[in-house]
Amino acid sequence: VHQTPIRVRFDEVDTMGVVHHPRYLVYFEVARTEYLRDLGLAYADVMHTGTHFAVVEAGARYLRPARYDDELSVSTRVSHCGGARFTLEYEVRRADELLATGFTLLGAVDTSGRPVRLPHAARELLAGAVPGPAAAPAAEE
Amino acid sequence: VHQTPIRVRFDEVDTMGVVHHPRYLVYFEVARTEYLRDLGLAYADVMHTGTHFAVVEAGARYLRPARYDDELSVSTRVSHCGGARFTLEYEVRRADELLATGFTLLGAVDTSGRPVRLPHAARELLAGAVPGPAAAPAAEE
Amino acid sequence: VHQTPIRVRFDEVDTMGVVHHPRYLVYFEVARTEYLRDLGLAYADVMHTGTHFAVVEAGARYLRPARYDDELSVSTRVSHCGGARFTLEYEVRRADELLATGFTLLGAVDTSGRPVRLPHAARELLAGAVPGPAAAPAAEE
Amino acid sequence: VHQTPIRVRFDEVDTMGVVHHPRYLVYFEVARTEYLRDLGLAYADVMHTGTHFAVVEAGARYLRPARYDDELSVSTRVSHCGGARFTLEYEVRRADELLATGFTLLGAVDTSGRPVRLPHAARELLAGAVPGPAAAPAAEE
Repeated sequence: VHQTPIRVRFDEVDTMGVVHHPRYLVYFEVARTEYLRDLGLAYADVMHTGTHFAVVEAGARYLRPARYDDELSVSTRVSHCGGARFTLEYEVRRADELLATGFTLLGAVDTSGRPVRLPHAARELLAGAVPGPAAAPAAEE
Repeated sequence: VHQTPIRVRFDEVDTMGVVHHPRYLVYFEVARTEYLRDLGLAYADVMHTGTHFAVVEAGARYLRPARYDDELSVSTRVSHCGGARFTLEYEVRRADELLATGFTLLGAVDTSGRPVRLPHAARELLAGAVPGPAAAPAAEE
Repeated sequence: VHQTPIRVRFDEVDTMGVVHHPRYLVYFEVARTEYLRDLGLAYADVMHTGTHFAVVEAGARYLRPARYDDELSVSTRVSHCGGARFTLEYEVRRADELLATGFTLLGAVDTSGRPVRLPHAARELLAGAVPGPAAAPAAEE
Repeated sequence: VHQTPIRVRFDEVDTMGVVHHPRYLVYFEVARTEYLRDLGLAYADVMHTGTHFAVVEAGARYLRPARYDDELSVSTRVSHCGGARFTLEYEVRRADELLATGFTLLGAVDTSGRPVRLPHAARELLAGAVPGPAAAPAAEE
């Protein structure tokens, strides 16, 4: 499981003094960038090859609030990888306290936004990172 | 079903030229504010009474991209209302084209963030807006 | 002077309950889009011709705070137009109360970000909108 | 001069592939938080005492664009400190390349937003950080 540290910025906090809920999807994205870089898939490089990862579905559960200047840690893991799509799951913690969980289903698209299959190397890396018996790349999505 | 018009702003579009996915949760919130105002529940007034509606869970499915300067319409409806929580569902369209759907589960909290029951008037209005046989306020959540 | 109405969104307000200062630059941009559209220069169309307006310099003075759900009005006027750059000035009001002022100096660039001269039609429209004796297009910037 | 590293996030980049200009004011704010913490003025602590630093004026000049995933460094210094207000200046670099400069004039306010004098300790720290002969705290603003 990959950990990305995030310090809560002032502009991320709402009038209740807590991190505004859409911002968690941005935190997931920051964590995703670092996770993919760590796997060997720097997203800036992936985009240069003409493949983008579009968010097809996203969700979050908010358990406890985060506040300005909190030091958070976002853990990221890939839970599924098919031929054209993969799912990442996230947990946001402040020290040992779980604040939020979430997921994003991502699909490979070309520069026009049309769905394409995942580049072979990306799929190998992502499928290899799926924990347990699910790690074998599926023949079909 | 309530409709809120939203014009896509330049800062809401990413490097692919499409609206960045977390922004839809902001669009839902804008639509929610207008929907609640229309129901008789101006959120600025609700907050002055010491009750806030915290987002407990949120999700979105992204079907087709929206682009800079697009004129979108967000439809909002309440699909469930319990004693302390209610669920709103959203659909984002450009003309007749469905671009995204989503939901938020909201819970009443006090100014310290502690869960409380929905104010009676709010619950009457929200439960009354649930379509069909589900409209009767449940005795318990 | 062109007026753009803006309703303050919940995510634009900080922990003090007031609109977060960088957001005014976004309000200026929203007002700029509407102002240019009104002049006959829809920015989405300008971009399709390969010219972009890059912000070269921006500034704001914050006089009084704006709050959640406030109905604001942003007035926009072009104060200078040279061969490659133009300056817009903004005033943000809530009813008659002046909340903030600001400006942006914009420069025409091509899709690679290189400075170019303003397209002739754009310059005619912008220079024609400069009030008073300054309205005559300058021979040189 | 204090340095704050900032990695450009995907949501901070516009459709031209460059960091959206209002975001620099957020970068300045992130750098300001780290700078003040380093001076001994953690802003979260300052706010707990009932004093806030409101932005009275802000400005930026954009020299060269920053892009997704760039590693930036923001240098911050205090250039003036009066009895109730102080000015910070910022420079944003990618390696040795200067991308943008800016400033914010900040004023101490109470929780109602009314101007107040800077807390004595804050003023000592800020005035002590002004470079050169200007370092002596002025008798009056």
